[in-house]
Amino acid sequence: MKSSSFLLPLLSLLSLLCPSLGTKPIFLRRFPSQAHGSLRPSADGHVSSSRGWETKYYTQTLDHFNYHPISYVTFQQKYLINAEHWGGAAASAPIFVYTGNEGPIEIFAKNTGLMFDIAPKYYGTSIPFGSGAEENATTAGYLSTSLVLADFATLIVDLKRNLTAQKSPVVVFGGSYGGMLAAWFRLKYPEVAIGALASSAPILQIDPNFNPFVFTSIITNNFKSTSENCYRVIKNSWDEIDRAVASNTGKEKMEKSLKLCTGGAESAKDWIDGALTLVSMTDYPTPSNFLQPLPAYPVKQMCNAIDNPTTGNDTFAKLYGAMNIYYNYTGAAGECFNTSVSATERIDSDAWSWQTCTEIFLPTGANNNESMFQPSTGTNLEWMTELCYYYYYVKPRFFWLTTEFGASSIKTALKKFGSNIIFYNGLKDPWSGGGVLKSISKTLVAIVAPKGAHHVDLRASTRDDPKWLQDLRTSEVQIIKKWIRQYYRDNSISSSI
Amino acid sequence: MKSSSFLLPLLSLLSLLCPSLGTKPIFLRRFPSQAHGSLRPSADGHVSSSRGWETKYYTQTLDHFNYHPISYVTFQQKYLINAEHWGGAAASAPIFVYTGNEGPIEIFAKNTGLMFDIAPKYYGTSIPFGSGAEENATTAGYLSTSLVLADFATLIVDLKRNLTAQKSPVVVFGGSYGGMLAAWFRLKYPEVAIGALASSAPILQIDPNFNPFVFTSIITNNFKSTSENCYRVIKNSWDEIDRAVASNTGKEKMEKSLKLCTGGAESAKDWIDGALTLVSMTDYPTPSNFLQPLPAYPVKQMCNAIDNPTTGNDTFAKLYGAMNIYYNYTGAAGECFNTSVSATERIDSDAWSWQTCTEIFLPTGANNNESMFQPSTGTNLEWMTELCYYYYYVKPRFFWLTTEFGASSIKTALKKFGSNIIFYNGLKDPWSGGGVLKSISKTLVAIVAPKGAHHVDLRASTRDDPKWLQDLRTSEVQIIKKWIRQYYRDNSISSSI
Repeated sequence: MKSSSFLLPLLSLLSLLCPSLGTKPIFLRRFPSQAHGSLRPSADGHVSSSRGWETKYYTQTLDHFNYHPISYVTFQQKYLINAEHWGGAAASAPIFVYTGNEGPIEIFAKNTGLMFDIAPKYYGTSIPFGSGAEENATTAGYLSTSLVLADFATLIVDLKRNLTAQKSPVVVFGGSYGGMLAAWFRLKYPEVAIGALASSAPILQIDPNFNPFVFTSIITNNFKSTSENCYRVIKNSWDEIDRAVASNTGKEKMEKSLKLCTGGAESAKDWIDGALTLVSMTDYPTPSNFLQPLPAYPVKQMCNAIDNPTTGNDTFAKLYGAMNIYYNYTGAAGECFNTSVSATERIDSDAWSWQTCTEIFLPTGANNNESMFQPSTGTNLEWMTELCYYYYYVKPRFFWLTTEFGASSIKTALKKFGSNIIFYNGLKDPWSGGGVLKSISKTLVAIVAPKGAHHVDLRASTRDDPKWLQDLRTSEVQIIKKWIRQYYRDNSISSSI
Repeated sequence: MKSSSFLLPLLSLLSLLCPSLGTKPIFLRRFPSQAHGSLRPSADGHVSSSRGWETKYYTQTLDHFNYHPISYVTFQQKYLINAEHWGGAAASAPIFVYTGNEGPIEIFAKNTGLMFDIAPKYYGTSIPFGSGAEENATTAGYLSTSLVLADFATLIVDLKRNLTAQKSPVVVFGGSYGGMLAAWFRLKYPEVAIGALASSAPILQIDPNFNPFVFTSIITNNFKSTSENCYRVIKNSWDEIDRAVASNTGKEKMEKSLKLCTGGAESAKDWIDGALTLVSMTDYPTPSNFLQPLPAYPVKQMCNAIDNPTTGNDTFAKLYGAMNIYYNYTGAAGECFNTSVSATERIDSDAWSWQTCTEIFLPTGANNNESMFQPSTGTNLEWMTELCYYYYYVKPRFFWLTTEFGASSIKTALKKFGSNIIFYNGLKDPWSGGGVLKSISKTLVAIVAPKGAHHVDLRASTRDDPKWLQDLRTSEVQIIKKWIRQYYRDNSISSSI
């Protein structure tokens, strides 16, 4: 178990696909996020409009699956709706729904030209809560995957009824955890959505017995194939750090070469580990500003810094160059690095940690031989149980999600039961190891991008996108069009799509 | 809305099919039932064995779908297991699971030579409860269809792991509400069960917009096709009762002819209504002892009594003959009938009423023209809401189950997503109106028995079973064998089945 991976969220960025289809996109989420003070729903169901998206609120049931008095509490579920491109109910025009996930997406959406805020509060005004709700099991207890899916279903069904758009086909989209939600939604609510684009969704990794070393070997391979030397420097650096931290002179030397603020050496390993992991996840072909402002091909950039001959044999100077790419691309980090800064500081990962401690535990670790990371034991359920009990007073239900959604055997189930799901995965993304990498049937299509990172398909397209990425998006759009056309044929609805 | 139908449970009786297949049957349930004092699980997880069935307890999670501290409460879920005929884990022999329903089945099981008790208590010892738990939303709140399905999934997966029988195919069986559970289980947990026999499962009737008059017209047709005169006498009797009850002489006359205990005239209509409904449901071709001891073909027997020329024009004497079939077949009723006795007195219907008030509302009513019952308005959601709030302080979520499981459109979903479900329905059974009466695909097979009543297929076979019933069971067994053989082929498991 890598200690840093406990808090490592699945990260998501997405853009709306193919608005030219005349679709109505809806973005929604059940998630506590403390980053949205200014966007909290007002008690009176306030509706506001901004940049093409209309913000609305839906009175949602706290718990659909039991009938305890508390379950009847309602909350105002925030959702964004954009009808600009919609063909309308009369035309039974498609509705696209984004199954929101665990990051306050607007933070980076602002920087990519997209506008969406998919961070509804799920706590009703009748349950007092403030910041820190996710640290309290009584209030956070209602954050669960099954309830999220039920919220989606309820909202979509009701919304279609209100729009008299019952015949409109719904396609769900999601990336990362949201991609898992999209795939599972299609499996559990096949009536409600005709298809799902599940981007970078590690649905096989929910099994606690999943090989924990897959995650780090993908990152390792990404660095190794970029530069053998870069890989070797990183692999050897951990012991060097351990040795340096053991003495005052070592620490001083390290703090100087790595330009760490005093005392930063102790927590340097997690800080470096996080950057290496996240840079592989977000190894996009164009400059991005997701977790950190990053150049195009940031892994290549990091390795260039490490391979830079001017650093000679100074491992720490090499690491400085690499960390400078991740933590200081804009030069805003200041005089020295603060290693207590998390690699995912921009996104609020508390709620994700809570989910890790209740239902979604995704094994990661590093083995001795191949991995460029320092070896770690991999999955340790006892340790996790203790940690979670210590932090949240809850014990993880490790095997619940595999029962509810299946894991390795989900492929068999999907083959017989499922249809109309696209599983995109990019092989530079460590989460691709838990994804569906082979098509399961004609309508359960795996799209694998060797040069792709974490849900790069869902990012807003740019002029500089390489051809493989353009082609990838085109393929996805074609498949989705096919589903919609098939739906129209099956239901004898005429359409120009 | 017929007032009596509010409390009218779906009734279930079943027998294990085809033990010759070398299967392991498991019976399980999440349900409060006050009728089982002697069978309550002891606190220490006591295991007892009787008549081939071993009683076991599984430590079940109170609420799988949220992580509120209360959800972690466990209860000892009782289940019965019979391994007598099981081919064993090494042979990957099939496991049959009965998805328990809402009646304390052993009451009638005793009388049919079957032995099963599928009435586990679902409340953990840490939640204090006693009789009347279903009248308290705080304790009864955890009785929900979704939680029942999740319990099944958890128990089956865990049990297979413990038996090292992961490769054993599981087939779920259920009748009535249990049949709905079996079908929905196959839809929501396709990985866990390879197929389902959903007997007399009115899955289309969960839609509040379902035509409420279907239910009573099936009963009407059953009586009408048995005897036109019988039908007419019953149809005209309601007004006659109303007139009689309006005066003391009328009441006296009625109480005398119908042999009612004094004061019984007032509640006679519900009492008669219940008997007519339930006799059509349980219109079996052999003597039975389910809700009441009944002769073979009880509708025919009732109509014979009504058509008996010795009763002349005395409607009440005719009704006496009919009610005598239902309420006094063994002659144990005594000197006069007590009309405050419910037609379903043998089964505890409180928990079912609770479910009616929370999630499962099945519309029934009677129209003016055809129905032999007194006209009623049919579905009235406002009225139901008030009634439920009055009784239980809960409001029904009328549209939740149609969102969770679909209703009319479930056929489309099943066609695309489902496989391996048998939908049995008998056309004498008023619940057949809400059933799947046409095959949806090659593996979603509707079996319709024109002479069949409520899940007659699941009853223990008797020597006197007519050929159509024998053939019906043979067909079901053949289909299930086919699923199992297919499963073995798909998984390269050799088997002699």
